[in-house]
Amino acid sequence: MNYTAIFENAVDSLRQEKRYRVFADIERIAGRFPHALWHSPQGRREIVVWCSNDYLGMGQHPASIEAMVTAARQLGVGAGGTRNISGNSHQVVMLEAELADLHGKEAALVFTSGYVSNQTGISTIGKLLPDALILSDQLNHNSMIEGVRQSGREKAIFRHNDLDHLEELLRKAGQERPKLIAFESVYSMDGDVAPIGRICDLAERYNAMTYLDEVHAVGMYGPRGGGIAERDGVMERVDVIEGTLAKAFGALGGYIAAAAPIVDAVRSHAPGFIFTSALPPAVAAAAQASVRHLKSSQAERAAQQANAARTKAALARAGLPVAISDTHIVPVIVGDAERCKAASDLLLADHGIYIQPINYPTVPRGSERLRITPTPFHNEALIADLTKALVAVWHRLDLPFQVKAQAAE
Amino acid sequence: MNYTAIFENAVDSLRQEKRYRVFADIERIAGRFPHALWHSPQGRREIVVWCSNDYLGMGQHPASIEAMVTAARQLGVGAGGTRNISGNSHQVVMLEAELADLHGKEAALVFTSGYVSNQTGISTIGKLLPDALILSDQLNHNSMIEGVRQSGREKAIFRHNDLDHLEELLRKAGQERPKLIAFESVYSMDGDVAPIGRICDLAERYNAMTYLDEVHAVGMYGPRGGGIAERDGVMERVDVIEGTLAKAFGALGGYIAAAAPIVDAVRSHAPGFIFTSALPPAVAAAAQASVRHLKSSQAERAAQQANAARTKAALARAGLPVAISDTHIVPVIVGDAERCKAASDLLLADHGIYIQPINYPTVPRGSERLRITPTPFHNEALIADLTKALVAVWHRLDLPFQVKAQAAE
Repeated sequence: MNYTAIFENAVDSLRQEKRYRVFADIERIAGRFPHALWHSPQGRREIVVWCSNDYLGMGQHPASIEAMVTAARQLGVGAGGTRNISGNSHQVVMLEAELADLHGKEAALVFTSGYVSNQTGISTIGKLLPDALILSDQLNHNSMIEGVRQSGREKAIFRHNDLDHLEELLRKAGQERPKLIAFESVYSMDGDVAPIGRICDLAERYNAMTYLDEVHAVGMYGPRGGGIAERDGVMERVDVIEGTLAKAFGALGGYIAAAAPIVDAVRSHAPGFIFTSALPPAVAAAAQASVRHLKSSQAERAAQQANAARTKAALARAGLPVAISDTHIVPVIVGDAERCKAASDLLLADHGIYIQPINYPTVPRGSERLRITPTPFHNEALIADLTKALVAVWHRLDLPFQVKAQAAE
Repeated sequence: MNYTAIFENAVDSLRQEKRYRVFADIERIAGRFPHALWHSPQGRREIVVWCSNDYLGMGQHPASIEAMVTAARQLGVGAGGTRNISGNSHQVVMLEAELADLHGKEAALVFTSGYVSNQTGISTIGKLLPDALILSDQLNHNSMIEGVRQSGREKAIFRHNDLDHLEELLRKAGQERPKLIAFESVYSMDGDVAPIGRICDLAERYNAMTYLDEVHAVGMYGPRGGGIAERDGVMERVDVIEGTLAKAFGALGGYIAAAAPIVDAVRSHAPGFIFTSALPPAVAAAAQASVRHLKSSQAERAAQQANAARTKAALARAGLPVAISDTHIVPVIVGDAERCKAASDLLLADHGIYIQPINYPTVPRGSERLRITPTPFHNEALIADLTKALVAVWHRLDLPFQVKAQAAE
């Protein structure tokens, strides 16, 4: 038994499939986002980041930074324990109140990541519902898939955003069986949006619970940043809203917001919550500052949407295969892992533009892409630079122009 | 189908078993650890925390706080993405190098928590080893149990720290079958220690891999804080060492350290790593400052051991049922969930001493306890106060004195 060879082979197979991941070593620059320093093999070099999930640049917002700095100086750098064992900082308690208010729910519960929120949240809710059927959108994120799997409950996958298929599965399950519909509002790789209100119609008709992942929407949609459900006026109809503090809110952590009995049951039963150290007060304070700021400020949301629209228009005008999305996510399809990585490498090396290639398993094979995320800080000059650089790389690699988008929709 | 009633019942059953958890709302005070503010129903009140897992008080160390503050000001509050998609900050890269060096391994990989390290680390390693048998200590932490379960591999549980039983299971599995021995160095609830060297002897004899959780030991044992394996001179014989940044290092996050092919395979295949936002650079910087400080400073380790020994001696002299441990963990056994909670409530309300009750499922039923964690900052006066308060509470609740400890050993 040669253990080393087994692990080496597990990595070599990724290399052969051209989807071995190399992480770009990046140093962000607060106050100059999206500019950053890249620690390249040839030394440090300034670049422009076009693939950040710090969607609104809140990671560098003065209010968030000051909240973190103040809390670190006053309380220190860590929580010191699990939520139950000395780690329940006042900052986390206040953050949960802020999030419950954001979503108009009775309570919220913070986890160390959005991934863990879904994984332990869905699995715990599923386990608590006897004989539940979990109806899961085909394109749900890996964290939701793992949550469904770990619940041990039967699952039924409905075709992406397909209301007829969902209804068929609900009808088949019957009124009496506990049912949980798990879906996202904004699907992160294509940027398309779920018909939340109509899914709630079906949930009410067939007596199902709804669990909505708003990870790529909170902070960015709705008059207070409550997400697509708030924008669509259906937030109170969704049973559980899950979100992240690590994207538009710029910090770290995830959460669910729901009626008090649901939150209390998850708090009391979820292993991925009970047995893990709490979020540091300094991180919670930073996140709360971002959430609070985005409840009243519309400037970031407006600028992000404007820049996303400008970027899509500029890339389309240049004949680049930009997939049309309704949201701030701008996918440019390459359709091949090796060429996708080559495009990304050239953008970084020759143009100082950082867009990580997105390959399988994050997206289906054949839909490999550059996923571009314009923020309020990607201005017209940067959009023009991006367009020029992409066109040059497309010529250099002989990639097709004006191809119909192949997003997995 | 009344969904609300289901969740209410799931919580009521905990209330009936007297193990419904109420989190104490705590505000730490940097520079005055272990003193803290308790947001009680009657208002804010100063208390002394005796159950923190910030074992060495590094959460308030000036070097760690300054590292967090500096990074927050220079880089902002969040990572901005997963490790692969723009979140690979230079601070995380440096932290991993620091951790690899700490454990004398080729590489290390940081996760958002120790829980996730074990869960996705063990499950990924298990999945990569064809037909593996995972040999798991009976008292392993929930995160390891979940990792084993999610690997989908066969598991064999060996009696706690029982070398004969482990050998029997290894022999039965045979030389050729891939085998992973998963165990801890310091078991967190009893504070007892695994015979790491002799487990490595068995692993070598039967050609098994070893995965060692040093979560309750890193920073605190060994000349550079590498843990019990370092103290015992067997660090290089352990294949994978898992640790946390949230306890003795005072921050947040977890990690594994191992040979480069193992780390690279986990990095490339673990869903709980790939699909989650990276640790913020400010958190990574704080953690690295702690790790680096504890590589050279012996003062914190020496003071912690001295205060733990003083605490054990004082409690034993007072006839309190303190379980004898070899480590810094001081369990005082109550043996009943309701009285354990009552003792904790009285300590907090009447004496301003915060020790969270530890009930099932964290410890087996019948071994409910107060788990006391003396740190370098719990001086003789605080130990005297603690002893007096415990004796008063023991009388008040008519709890037995000088009972033989019932730790689950």
